[in-house]
Amino acid sequence: MTAADVLATLPARLYAICALLLVLKMLALATYTSMVRMRKTVYASPEDYRFQGKEPTLRTDADVERVRRAHRNDLENVLPFLAIGPIYLLAGASELGAWICFVGFTTARILHTVFYVRGAMPHRTIAYTAGFAITLWMVLSSIWTLVR
Amino acid sequence: MTAADVLATLPARLYAICALLLVLKMLALATYTSMVRMRKTVYASPEDYRFQGKEPTLRTDADVERVRRAHRNDLENVLPFLAIGPIYLLAGASELGAWICFVGFTTARILHTVFYVRGAMPHRTIAYTAGFAITLWMVLSSIWTLVR
Amino acid sequence: MTAADVLATLPARLYAICALLLVLKMLALATYTSMVRMRKTVYASPEDYRFQGKEPTLRTDADVERVRRAHRNDLENVLPFLAIGPIYLLAGASELGAWICFVGFTTARILHTVFYVRGAMPHRTIAYTAGFAITLWMVLSSIWTLVR
Repeated sequence: MTAADVLATLPARLYAICALLLVLKMLALATYTSMVRMRKTVYASPEDYRFQGKEPTLRTDADVERVRRAHRNDLENVLPFLAIGPIYLLAGASELGAWICFVGFTTARILHTVFYVRGAMPHRTIAYTAGFAITLWMVLSSIWTLVR
Repeated sequence: MTAADVLATLPARLYAICALLLVLKMLALATYTSMVRMRKTVYASPEDYRFQGKEPTLRTDADVERVRRAHRNDLENVLPFLAIGPIYLLAGASELGAWICFVGFTTARILHTVFYVRGAMPHRTIAYTAGFAITLWMVLSSIWTLVR
Repeated sequence: MTAADVLATLPARLYAICALLLVLKMLALATYTSMVRMRKTVYASPEDYRFQGKEPTLRTDADVERVRRAHRNDLENVLPFLAIGPIYLLAGASELGAWICFVGFTTARILHTVFYVRGAMPHRTIAYTAGFAITLWMVLSSIWTLVR
């Protein structure tokens, strides 16, 4: 087995593509945060105001805070998914399981971000729950495979 | 070496099981946060209040904030552990080292969450320090193996 | 291919060393946060004040908040890098690519932390942008390799 062979199976390739897309989504969200901060002129640090030639303020902005909550929610959910994805693979994920878990999770999390930024409820909660349920399934089915 | 063989060694299997348990713990903490938010009716976003037919407020709650700090502490400590665990394995972890590091870290972090939510000091700091020391040991011993 | 062989190639070994150094940097930042908290006597939880025999307060401190922002920025940027590094490797990273991406990212993030804690602008933004651009390149070049 060479390094290239690792990504030769469909489940591993799906995991890799989904992980890359999820990180791309997180990078986009980080950039969007900067854009909202600049549009609202609300920055995180006093030195950011001074660098822009503005007076520092402790003001916060509802839109900036909403994007930051969406981002933190990614840290809490996407990063654990990325950590256990390879374990789920090695525990013998089927092609169907990989499709549902990897593509399903990625779709749910992209929608979650869109819904969060738009303040769309209960859509956001539904997308969150879908991603949560998939992660939970991956964890429980992998534990079952490893300890039985 | 096939995919299944990767998890055939004891250290790798221990890492996989501990990583799954740690993510399960983080999922439980996320769910607990939602429960405390609902019990206290303190939500993160204005749209969450409106969805419940309530007036949005900027109120925060000490219990909600405590659970959120416990969760952020997991992001800061559990996720880096998950990232370097496989490197520690590949750098040649012994069975004893894997038992102490993987099972020890997982135990410390489960206790850390319990102590944090209960506000138990200095228990929380002791659990945190144990997890921190194990991660530091994994990092330093792996660097030593890789660069010598 | 045995476990040891995985780390035998230069790109994999570079990734492993850089990942370990990045986690070491995050551990150092966590310790620095505790040091600033103790110097300023500003803690996160009421029970921390009581444990020190002090009256709990909701006061925050500008220096503590700055270090916490630096740490959160690591969670948002370093952890996704750690997750996709192995995928970038398996997608066939060249030795040159590994040097630039792994060593470049690690250098940029160490500088980012130093600049953030010192409030140095625009240095911090330049270091952030370098790390961001490298991660984006790793994501896009890996997707290109996997889907073409």
